[in-house]
Amino acid sequence: MLNFKFYNPTRIIFGKGRIKTVSREIPRGSKILVTYGGGSVRRHGVLDQVMKALEGCDVREFGGIEPNPEYDTLMKAVQLVRSTGIDFLLAVGGGSVIDGTKFIAAAAVFEGDPWEILTSFGSKVSGALPFGTVLTLPATSSEMNDGAVISRRSINAKLHFAHPSVFPRFSVLDPATTITLPPEQVSNGIVDTFVHITEQYITYPAGGKIQDRFAEGLLLTLIEDGPKALLEPENYDVRANLMWCATLGLNGLIGAGVPQDWATHMVGHELTALYGLDHGKTLAILLPAMLKVRSSDKREKLLQYAERVWGITQGGDDERIDAAIERTRAFFESLNVRTNLGSYGISGECIPRVAEQLRRHGMTRLGERADVTPEMVKKILESCL
Amino acid sequence: MLNFKFYNPTRIIFGKGRIKTVSREIPRGSKILVTYGGGSVRRHGVLDQVMKALEGCDVREFGGIEPNPEYDTLMKAVQLVRSTGIDFLLAVGGGSVIDGTKFIAAAAVFEGDPWEILTSFGSKVSGALPFGTVLTLPATSSEMNDGAVISRRSINAKLHFAHPSVFPRFSVLDPATTITLPPEQVSNGIVDTFVHITEQYITYPAGGKIQDRFAEGLLLTLIEDGPKALLEPENYDVRANLMWCATLGLNGLIGAGVPQDWATHMVGHELTALYGLDHGKTLAILLPAMLKVRSSDKREKLLQYAERVWGITQGGDDERIDAAIERTRAFFESLNVRTNLGSYGISGECIPRVAEQLRRHGMTRLGERADVTPEMVKKILESCL
Repeated sequence: MLNFKFYNPTRIIFGKGRIKTVSREIPRGSKILVTYGGGSVRRHGVLDQVMKALEGCDVREFGGIEPNPEYDTLMKAVQLVRSTGIDFLLAVGGGSVIDGTKFIAAAAVFEGDPWEILTSFGSKVSGALPFGTVLTLPATSSEMNDGAVISRRSINAKLHFAHPSVFPRFSVLDPATTITLPPEQVSNGIVDTFVHITEQYITYPAGGKIQDRFAEGLLLTLIEDGPKALLEPENYDVRANLMWCATLGLNGLIGAGVPQDWATHMVGHELTALYGLDHGKTLAILLPAMLKVRSSDKREKLLQYAERVWGITQGGDDERIDAAIERTRAFFESLNVRTNLGSYGISGECIPRVAEQLRRHGMTRLGERADVTPEMVKKILESCL
Repeated sequence: MLNFKFYNPTRIIFGKGRIKTVSREIPRGSKILVTYGGGSVRRHGVLDQVMKALEGCDVREFGGIEPNPEYDTLMKAVQLVRSTGIDFLLAVGGGSVIDGTKFIAAAAVFEGDPWEILTSFGSKVSGALPFGTVLTLPATSSEMNDGAVISRRSINAKLHFAHPSVFPRFSVLDPATTITLPPEQVSNGIVDTFVHITEQYITYPAGGKIQDRFAEGLLLTLIEDGPKALLEPENYDVRANLMWCATLGLNGLIGAGVPQDWATHMVGHELTALYGLDHGKTLAILLPAMLKVRSSDKREKLLQYAERVWGITQGGDDERIDAAIERTRAFFESLNVRTNLGSYGISGECIPRVAEQLRRHGMTRLGERADVTPEMVKKILESCL
């Protein structure tokens, strides 16, 4: 096992009917800004539940945070926070709203140009306003980690920052809020969670037996319950397992003490920045190709993945690996997420563009062995057409 | 899945060579009390490593905290803390030293008779001195939870308290420190960890698929690496997996959202209080009998345990359950931990005494269904002779 640090102080309040207790988690007398995205939290009544729970508190609202939250939008919230003396934020939504709120929290107290928060990957952050979340879309684990991804469309940028001061103070996870999600968002969330886990699991062996077992346990749960969420949308237990899976998939636990990859995510971010493709869809396209092209480097873990996650024990090594990759692709397709670029109208012209973007963002040596170059990414993308 | 809250702010610093960084985790200018047990941390150089890492700090020592830490001993430390203005504690040792230090931390700032901390199970605690730990004996997860068990031998009492203020601020886990542990302590620690996990896993199904998979992953790791720790005492990766298993076995994670049993522990505490038997040994005796006598109530989870943990898929339900219980017993025996009372010189006269102790401590309805009465415990103990 590799040496590691693990720290995660976010308080999770999980279950049915938990939103109504949210005000207990916020310091009395706070000036609260409730942040959210488009209309869905309003349409499905979650925002109403939150506002009712906050009755008697000093509350303002800031809506309109986009999927892939936009820097320019978030800076408007920062101005509002600064001008009104807001001292607690409450994000209501999915990963984008929570990521955006992390940026608002850090930028509101940042001295200097807040863009530096992103160009320094968070290293220049020294503090943040406290905030909590009410999660409505399980996928990113932003509700229980200290990272965020922010986009700036004017320059095709999608950048990540992380800092311990942006761990949520608490997150309310009521699986019932996810029952009304559109199937497409459910599927994207399952794929995103799945790939968060494989980024921390399908690397090379480092003796982390528990991390492997936990990763496998999460993957098995996604495989069992993911399709059920589409078939039985009102099944609460299915929603609960998927929600908790997503949180545990990227809260630091399964990645502590083992190598991590993240090449699929980094390349995926460039596809989203260039073509506006949903994050989950970029991952569904890239993961099978990434595993296939890099299969010799990932050999031992792919064989373990084949056996323990897919139950594949027959055939030679290469056969078992190929079968596991095909099962992965078929799993994404079974969730109605297409796994090639052509299905989304993206042609081979993307290949040099993605490679160029990676170079521009300094991402020329990705993956757990730092050997995924833009040239290798070209080869990977060719097999995704 | 049941509704739950999960909160665990302890910072884990895991790996080789980590002890030398311990002073970074303690606020500058603290008046530190280093607490420890008998001579082993001194004999094997861990205390030296800690004292060297704290060079230049204001440090005092308090040694002599017993296995099953004794109230009267701990109260001496409380007096020392109060009289010298100590404001940070650093526990160096295993679960007993850490549990004892939690009590010292809470008692030092407690208004009133500190015994009430235990008789109120922690509900009267309002705060505690901050403290960290350097773990040397993986077993109890006290290094990453907010509970402690304290004994008061003069009245044959062994009582538990818990409070969020006694989460360690940090815990340093260097698996290399565990290489010199006597085999008996290693075995006891493995059994203790194993039974912590089964108390949260072998109950009744509640839809917590992830919790089940995580519990199974920890049990499989213990089964794979437990015997190796005895055969290859210097195998660092084995020690690392066992150490992290023990921490994750009782840090709140696998028990969040599922029913919990704890009858084996509660009855075991009485055996320790009456006969001074090691905690791990009481569990090795009781668990197989507890599972057998309660097998109809635990049927579904026992069948799952048989299949997923022991790979038992042949035979009728009862056969598979019996086989899983026998494998459990054989696993403990393979660690050289005997699984019947007679091996420790304890006869049937213990049966009415334990039942009486349980009644006296108000533990008359134990287990996940609150149906383990002192009468049922008598039956269980009869099959342990």
